[in-house]
Amino acid sequence: MVLDEAALDARGPERVEAFSDGVFSIAITLLVLEIQLPNLGENPSPEALITALGSLWPSYVGYVVSFLTIGNAWINHHNLFRLVGRVSHGLLISNLLLLMAVGFLPFPTALLADTLGKPGEQVGVVVYAGTFVFASIMFNVLWAAVKKVLRPGAPRSAIEAINRSYLLGPPISIAALVIAFVNPTLGIVVIGGLMVLYLLPRASGT
Amino acid sequence: MVLDEAALDARGPERVEAFSDGVFSIAITLLVLEIQLPNLGENPSPEALITALGSLWPSYVGYVVSFLTIGNAWINHHNLFRLVGRVSHGLLISNLLLLMAVGFLPFPTALLADTLGKPGEQVGVVVYAGTFVFASIMFNVLWAAVKKVLRPGAPRSAIEAINRSYLLGPPISIAALVIAFVNPTLGIVVIGGLMVLYLLPRASGT
Amino acid sequence: MVLDEAALDARGPERVEAFSDGVFSIAITLLVLEIQLPNLGENPSPEALITALGSLWPSYVGYVVSFLTIGNAWINHHNLFRLVGRVSHGLLISNLLLLMAVGFLPFPTALLADTLGKPGEQVGVVVYAGTFVFASIMFNVLWAAVKKVLRPGAPRSAIEAINRSYLLGPPISIAALVIAFVNPTLGIVVIGGLMVLYLLPRASGT
Amino acid sequence: MVLDEAALDARGPERVEAFSDGVFSIAITLLVLEIQLPNLGENPSPEALITALGSLWPSYVGYVVSFLTIGNAWINHHNLFRLVGRVSHGLLISNLLLLMAVGFLPFPTALLADTLGKPGEQVGVVVYAGTFVFASIMFNVLWAAVKKVLRPGAPRSAIEAINRSYLLGPPISIAALVIAFVNPTLGIVVIGGLMVLYLLPRASGT
Repeated sequence: MVLDEAALDARGPERVEAFSDGVFSIAITLLVLEIQLPNLGENPSPEALITALGSLWPSYVGYVVSFLTIGNAWINHHNLFRLVGRVSHGLLISNLLLLMAVGFLPFPTALLADTLGKPGEQVGVVVYAGTFVFASIMFNVLWAAVKKVLRPGAPRSAIEAINRSYLLGPPISIAALVIAFVNPTLGIVVIGGLMVLYLLPRASGT
Repeated sequence: MVLDEAALDARGPERVEAFSDGVFSIAITLLVLEIQLPNLGENPSPEALITALGSLWPSYVGYVVSFLTIGNAWINHHNLFRLVGRVSHGLLISNLLLLMAVGFLPFPTALLADTLGKPGEQVGVVVYAGTFVFASIMFNVLWAAVKKVLRPGAPRSAIEAINRSYLLGPPISIAALVIAFVNPTLGIVVIGGLMVLYLLPRASGT
Repeated sequence: MVLDEAALDARGPERVEAFSDGVFSIAITLLVLEIQLPNLGENPSPEALITALGSLWPSYVGYVVSFLTIGNAWINHHNLFRLVGRVSHGLLISNLLLLMAVGFLPFPTALLADTLGKPGEQVGVVVYAGTFVFASIMFNVLWAAVKKVLRPGAPRSAIEAINRSYLLGPPISIAALVIAFVNPTLGIVVIGGLMVLYLLPRASGT
Repeated sequence: MVLDEAALDARGPERVEAFSDGVFSIAITLLVLEIQLPNLGENPSPEALITALGSLWPSYVGYVVSFLTIGNAWINHHNLFRLVGRVSHGLLISNLLLLMAVGFLPFPTALLADTLGKPGEQVGVVVYAGTFVFASIMFNVLWAAVKKVLRPGAPRSAIEAINRSYLLGPPISIAALVIAFVNPTLGIVVIGGLMVLYLLPRASGT
């Protein structure tokens, strides 16, 4: 249902942020449910347990990469909404579509963890990179909606920094997708490396 | 436990919104847990994996439809609570009953995903549409409670827009339920179409 | 870690409320995960599906009773924290212990749903009622902590209403526990009836 | 993506707190999902049910210890953020890494519950204690980031209390890890005891 433009104008983004924070924090916390020990019978020996814990390494990789991905997406979302002056219908919808990508991430993460180091590895990495492509496009759609409802006094430098950064998102994630088709291991390294790079403080330090 | 009317008067709806935001965001994020690969053994071939991923299409449909449904319900809830001036006991109870419908949605979604394209399809669509009917009735009950505690200056146009829009909810969802009894595929198309329609910006654009 | 009394004095209860809202809303939304169809094979007939959906009635009862229970507990918590002036260490700890009871409820709910109408029914109802006893005691412990940090101007009538209402909690829930030992069906009816009673508006209406 | 220092300066920690509250409250509520009855067939006798409920004691221990652990971590986080004046990139990243440890806790909790009183007990306790070590180190990293962005007027006494308390965290949790290698039961007693100790009010009372 869409209300009057005038009525919408009066709305601040606080509840949109609260709802989004909920989705981000749940998606990031659900990731741990994908880490599961294989069934080892009633009383496994310590050695069997240690071997099983070791064999879960793809799950640990998936947990860390996806935790950093969703955490980084949240930081981006946080920075974006600092610039929002009022809530438009376009903002609500594009935000919902971005959250749909974020909320979906536990599935490709589980697939990645199930396939790393196995014959289906390429399928797992391609699906994972594909979700990335979708999310990076959705971030640009959301950004286009935010730019129509900027708050007065939103710093020009922040807008330009986001412009630059977001334009790079889709080509880089599409590149990771293409690389995954050629060499899945390299594809996941590119995605993991991107995450670390994004999370590093700038040269000036903070 | 019910407190003094006078004491209740002083309460703003912020915590009711926070609790509701939690339920909405969790219900929408739990949907992804219903997307699960069938057991393919230890080392499935890439081909087997791709076939299995493709066979999950009813789960993807369920995820998208339910994500849009809960997202749309949240937008409605958001618009409704902008008009609330104070919290009444009736508001708390009717809000709780609406959340009971929202929180239930992952179950009919899983049922739908398990039955689409299979003999039990009709059962799945009917249960799904039935949950819709319940939710649309609960939205009207909540709206009746909100109208008793409107904030001063709530715009007349917004109230009338909600009146019109909510009155249509139960008959349309009952229609989808009836259609589902006759033709389940058409029933799910009607529900999906309604969601997209509700989410489209108005002609004037936003 | 415990900080200075003086520093604690300055703290408002907003973040304690936000954390508690999170636990309440997650516990209430997790309840739906306990409703699960039995494995019916690949392509169950519509009749088999309908029978299976019908046989889930104990899960529906569990969902509704527990949803109303947690919802009612949240309303109580909401009313209680309206009276809080500052956050004490005792408030944090007793709140945490109450949340431990709330967060535990999905387990006895699942047990109840697994046992209603079966030989183990009594065990299920007794464990459920026992969780109620624990929660009602914890509400009194929390209330004792709240009374030490009341905000200035907390209405005397609200304090007395809570005093009366909370004192009844433990004896009534212990009574339900005793009844469950004699007649489990009656025990669950008493608990369900209590919930409905608590949620009804007072005679004066709201 | 990192924005201008000047722009960051203007940001309050409210949304960081909301996101963190979400992760804490979800991690603490997910713990109950690890308590699961073994499959007892269709109609277990009351005696079989009671035996099964009794045999779940390691799960109850895991639930209580992890609930107190995450609850205690939340109280620490709460106290820490009261001192934050502005959000820096370093704060966001170190907070994310701490949340990664908190969100991981349901996994070692499940492992602990699966191994207590069984041959693999030592493995379970060592992994659990290891997660503690990681979390206590991350709390110190976060604290180092917070100290760079203290709010004006943050009480000296609170800062010194945190300094003292946090410095003890890593050595004590490493000690628990070492003890777990020698005597797993003693290791879990040390961790449990630490939690109770941390949660007790100080001598002066609150």
